[in-house]
Amino acid sequence: MATLTLDYANCLAERVGSHGLPAQTLTDAAPRLAELTRRLNQTKGTGWERWRLLPFDPMRREHVSAVKKLVGKLRTPTNDLIVLGIGGSALGNSAVHAALTPATYNLMPRKQRGGPRLFVLDNIDPHLVRETLDEVRRTDPKFKKTIVNVVSKSGETAETAAQFLVVRQMLKKALGKGYPKRIVAVTDPGKGTMREICEAEGYATLPVPEGVGGRFSVLSPVGLFSSAMCGIDVNGLLDGAAEMDQRCSEPDLMDNPAAMLALILIELTKRGKTNHVMMPYCNALLQLADWFRQLWAESLGKRQNKDGREVFAGATPIKALGATDQHSQIQLYREGPNDKVIGFVEVERFTRDLKIPRGLKVENLKYLEGATLGQLLAAEKKATEFALVESQRPNFTIRFSRLDANAVGQFIQLWEIVTAYAGLMLNIDAYDQPAVETGKVATFGLMGREGYQEWKTQVETALKPSSHVITSKGDSAPR
Amino acid sequence: MATLTLDYANCLAERVGSHGLPAQTLTDAAPRLAELTRRLNQTKGTGWERWRLLPFDPMRREHVSAVKKLVGKLRTPTNDLIVLGIGGSALGNSAVHAALTPATYNLMPRKQRGGPRLFVLDNIDPHLVRETLDEVRRTDPKFKKTIVNVVSKSGETAETAAQFLVVRQMLKKALGKGYPKRIVAVTDPGKGTMREICEAEGYATLPVPEGVGGRFSVLSPVGLFSSAMCGIDVNGLLDGAAEMDQRCSEPDLMDNPAAMLALILIELTKRGKTNHVMMPYCNALLQLADWFRQLWAESLGKRQNKDGREVFAGATPIKALGATDQHSQIQLYREGPNDKVIGFVEVERFTRDLKIPRGLKVENLKYLEGATLGQLLAAEKKATEFALVESQRPNFTIRFSRLDANAVGQFIQLWEIVTAYAGLMLNIDAYDQPAVETGKVATFGLMGREGYQEWKTQVETALKPSSHVITSKGDSAPR
Repeated sequence: MATLTLDYANCLAERVGSHGLPAQTLTDAAPRLAELTRRLNQTKGTGWERWRLLPFDPMRREHVSAVKKLVGKLRTPTNDLIVLGIGGSALGNSAVHAALTPATYNLMPRKQRGGPRLFVLDNIDPHLVRETLDEVRRTDPKFKKTIVNVVSKSGETAETAAQFLVVRQMLKKALGKGYPKRIVAVTDPGKGTMREICEAEGYATLPVPEGVGGRFSVLSPVGLFSSAMCGIDVNGLLDGAAEMDQRCSEPDLMDNPAAMLALILIELTKRGKTNHVMMPYCNALLQLADWFRQLWAESLGKRQNKDGREVFAGATPIKALGATDQHSQIQLYREGPNDKVIGFVEVERFTRDLKIPRGLKVENLKYLEGATLGQLLAAEKKATEFALVESQRPNFTIRFSRLDANAVGQFIQLWEIVTAYAGLMLNIDAYDQPAVETGKVATFGLMGREGYQEWKTQVETALKPSSHVITSKGDSAPR
Repeated sequence: MATLTLDYANCLAERVGSHGLPAQTLTDAAPRLAELTRRLNQTKGTGWERWRLLPFDPMRREHVSAVKKLVGKLRTPTNDLIVLGIGGSALGNSAVHAALTPATYNLMPRKQRGGPRLFVLDNIDPHLVRETLDEVRRTDPKFKKTIVNVVSKSGETAETAAQFLVVRQMLKKALGKGYPKRIVAVTDPGKGTMREICEAEGYATLPVPEGVGGRFSVLSPVGLFSSAMCGIDVNGLLDGAAEMDQRCSEPDLMDNPAAMLALILIELTKRGKTNHVMMPYCNALLQLADWFRQLWAESLGKRQNKDGREVFAGATPIKALGATDQHSQIQLYREGPNDKVIGFVEVERFTRDLKIPRGLKVENLKYLEGATLGQLLAAEKKATEFALVESQRPNFTIRFSRLDANAVGQFIQLWEIVTAYAGLMLNIDAYDQPAVETGKVATFGLMGREGYQEWKTQVETALKPSSHVITSKGDSAPR
């Protein structure tokens, strides 16, 4: 079983001076955090906190058995799996897949890969969609070995709906009456546009469970289906999540990594560290930073607190990659505005390391010979940590004892619980996203949806052509 | 020929109130910017500003002819091209490749692709390196159709050197005496560790030109070789860059997109907009945002200005993707701290669009039918722009008339010149990266390099084990 370790010493004043927290802050906050833990333990599983029950029976058993039943039938005959989804319906799938399959997964021969190739279509970029569909069609012209996994609670998310209309038509053309067999929908079990389509057309479905928001849904069938299709140990993910959940139910702050992370991040945010960088030293974990970006930004970026006061809360999540971004971002992180907390993620032991060979007789490179790439990566991480401390930049490390499904499950549950704490500490609603609404209705207006004409007018008035334009061809006249 | 249009109206007070710039600021700054333009026109091509000459003869002719000569010989017999490089030796290659080849490039059949598969190994992550090399070896066990393109000016960058030692050994084992024929080095033409290795072993080489820093080198052989190998129109890139360079030599601020962008971004930074988001509505352009991240962070993130005063200058570059990140970051961008400028990048017309078919009789989705994905994407972008303006969040748009090499070349030269202006306006050295040094020497110390023992001691003292650790397994004792 994997172990996750949180080391937060470099967030303290004893390491980074006035840019860190006095250790006393933690001691002083311990009773308040213990109280929040008790509160979260009570509300666990109620309202929008139902996601906390995903790793536990009976939800877990129901989901795993439904997923395994479908996967048992579909995995062997499927060569390509296309996920249609965006935001919380795509980020988790992509992140878990990247973390737990080889970087070259889609290039590997079917036999070695075990499962189908995976294409997560999380945008409506016409080139991306065409090129992906062309590639699938090239290897499977009649879509007989392709499964389309549409993920949408309501079915009305414009991007997913548009893709779905395109892909459904394509399947229908190629397969005639049999096309519904190639579609698996993860959607609301009881209501909504996608549910109605599923009933009418007869797709296999899996539930987006009631009370589980998109960005907290990766450990539901939303993320489990594509994971299981690609051979990922979904029980390992859920075991890890369950263990971490227990750990984060501990009232003692000093034993509860979620409470500690939330406390540190919120206290540092108050002190001007409003940019929160997640920087794994591991390519496979980079997309988990992307998943974190949504969780952190949508949950905490709120204009009003629960008392209706304007607070403009939140911090900006940023992803970076070690060692790569040492050659891109570290100059700024050390010498630019001291407005960041850097969260390193590292893997203690890579199962497949590579030795740097001896034999090129170059004096300046001798120090590398005989070491492994993993050792060099670990040294670079430690050196960067040191360099940040020297510049008084607060940072912490989450260390995976190894990279497996259990560890990834722990990491996911950890950050979701950190988010719940942070929401309480900021006194904001971590489960809504009111600011996304304007863009949606304005899109409806621009696309000519009935009842939204007024929005089109508003957009065109607000963004009317101006003279503040420069083109590369010499004329700066209004468009 | 492509056109790039900069629309900055949404950065002005008339659109976003007190969070924007009064139009008067631009008028007032015009003489100062004209003066900076004259200065840059004078220093163009001298010192660390030699990169400005890359799109012009004689450098251009020399580079293109050397690159084409090698590519003419190597392209047809090469199935896999592995680039070893990090930071400025990798970001440009990856960005240009992503922008100008299909998303599925590496999956396509050789004939359709035209060139070799491309693997840019920009990290020492052992799994990434092993998995990539395994994949290449699977299709070409003796590396007879593989070219390794090592990119390092000095040859001493630890990550690239380590990879190089691994890959060189592998080639040597497989190919015996003939292995140097499979290596193309882009390195300093006259001196340094890699140059010595090239001379001793007899690799083909291309120059990293004198006076061109890593992050300004994409339009040199650093970026041109892998681009040409993959069939990208390198003359198109350079034509675009040359045109943009002319355009950005215009003294009139209102006609000079680089001067205007620099002015707006620096003035907004002074007013607290310290996060600069680049958000293309186009998957292919996302990696150009990654390239921009390095350019902006390393060039401007500086503790001291040229007078030696502590300034902690710079802004944090952030990449985001439209429409995808509307479902991840826009909640924060609208309601969180008003500390950002969002730079949209969009493509006016996608050459291969996709129509959303009619025929699924669902009332709520009818508005999508008959439109194209490109139209929906454009509507989403406009709607997001509107939503940001409504929340008084400054933003601008760079519009590509179409996506081709010329446009990408324009974009690259534009941002490099913006960076040069920004450096002058901040009175900092945009061409050094002093803060990266500590991490390098500390890594040497930890790796046991002779002469650096003292650094090891320093790191271990600064980061000595503390009790500020929580593990997921219940014990919070010191490590």
